[in-house]
Amino acid sequence: MTTHQHVLGIMTRGRGTQEITDSVATVVHDSGLVTGLCHVFVQHTSCSLMITENADPDVRRDLETVMVRLAPDGDPAYRHDLEGPDDMAAHVRTVLTDTGLTVPVGGGRLLLGTWQGIYLWEHRTRGATRSVVVTVMG
Amino acid sequence: MTTHQHVLGIMTRGRGTQEITDSVATVVHDSGLVTGLCHVFVQHTSCSLMITENADPDVRRDLETVMVRLAPDGDPAYRHDLEGPDDMAAHVRTVLTDTGLTVPVGGGRLLLGTWQGIYLWEHRTRGATRSVVVTVMG
Amino acid sequence: MTTHQHVLGIMTRGRGTQEITDSVATVVHDSGLVTGLCHVFVQHTSCSLMITENADPDVRRDLETVMVRLAPDGDPAYRHDLEGPDDMAAHVRTVLTDTGLTVPVGGGRLLLGTWQGIYLWEHRTRGATRSVVVTVMG
Repeated sequence: MTTHQHVLGIMTRGRGTQEITDSVATVVHDSGLVTGLCHVFVQHTSCSLMITENADPDVRRDLETVMVRLAPDGDPAYRHDLEGPDDMAAHVRTVLTDTGLTVPVGGGRLLLGTWQGIYLWEHRTRGATRSVVVTVMG
Repeated sequence: MTTHQHVLGIMTRGRGTQEITDSVATVVHDSGLVTGLCHVFVQHTSCSLMITENADPDVRRDLETVMVRLAPDGDPAYRHDLEGPDDMAAHVRTVLTDTGLTVPVGGGRLLLGTWQGIYLWEHRTRGATRSVVVTVMG
Repeated sequence: MTTHQHVLGIMTRGRGTQEITDSVATVVHDSGLVTGLCHVFVQHTSCSLMITENADPDVRRDLETVMVRLAPDGDPAYRHDLEGPDDMAAHVRTVLTDTGLTVPVGGGRLLLGTWQGIYLWEHRTRGATRSVVVTVMG
């Protein structure tokens, strides 16, 4: 059994999703692991990870629409607004989705379904460089 | 340390929850693992996994009621509706719950609390055969 | 590779969040693990785990406000209300957040970002003693 760890630095371009499946798959490939687990983790509280449908971009667009409803920007009920109207909304969106994801590895590759992609979801309106820690174990 | 992996094929009967605790526990038992982790993963984007109360079926019924509100079928705001009014709603429900779950293993069994059950939650109105990858490591 | 497991008993003081980062970090430190994963799991269905901003307490206050909206206490649509108006709301809040969390370990410590804290979120209005299973592997 071995553990491999690699940190990806991902530049986001403001609110929206960015597929990172290939970057994560490369870490798995380079580790040489055949069977085990791959854990992905963002070291931030205003962006998150998500596995969703990778075929029709309208799915991610609709997920954005839903999140705007569940966690509206500039909600007058928020007390935390130091960094602007998207600040608290970004924390809520992160809590409702995932800071970390684990995907099984089998036959040397991520065992994702055909229509599953791994996405980094930036929740701030301004982009940033995001640290994503990938740990492969088995 | 060893890794065991087993794929369960679970037939769903349309929207609703189905307990899979026993199937997962059998994989743990068969692996012979004493202490470690058990990871469960669905290879789909329109069904999900959930740990919730296993005693009163009204809990899952009420969770269904809540999800219908948070992600209504046939919402006119959705652009993605290729497979019907439950298509996009199923993706939203999946993102708000879990594609993967990890449960600790101790003393050779899943360390679930007395009232915790693991459920596969089908979000499409029509049933399907769902692949659930169980990875046991420790 | 080794696995260490430790159960924390955490007393909650009713609905609200309680930081447990230091308790989890101590388990990691005591395990001697250098690189791997740390998994945290609550054995209950009416409290949950969350990683969120650890600087401004208003963030957790606002998250409380959002949860009250998404899962109101005493909602007349709920059928499950055996233990009072907060009973079903607590199950919903748990499902929308996390029963288990995995954090990478590197250089012998939790690889959390500067502003990330691990919180136990009690969703019942009355406090309880909560079992949190910490498993460290690598």
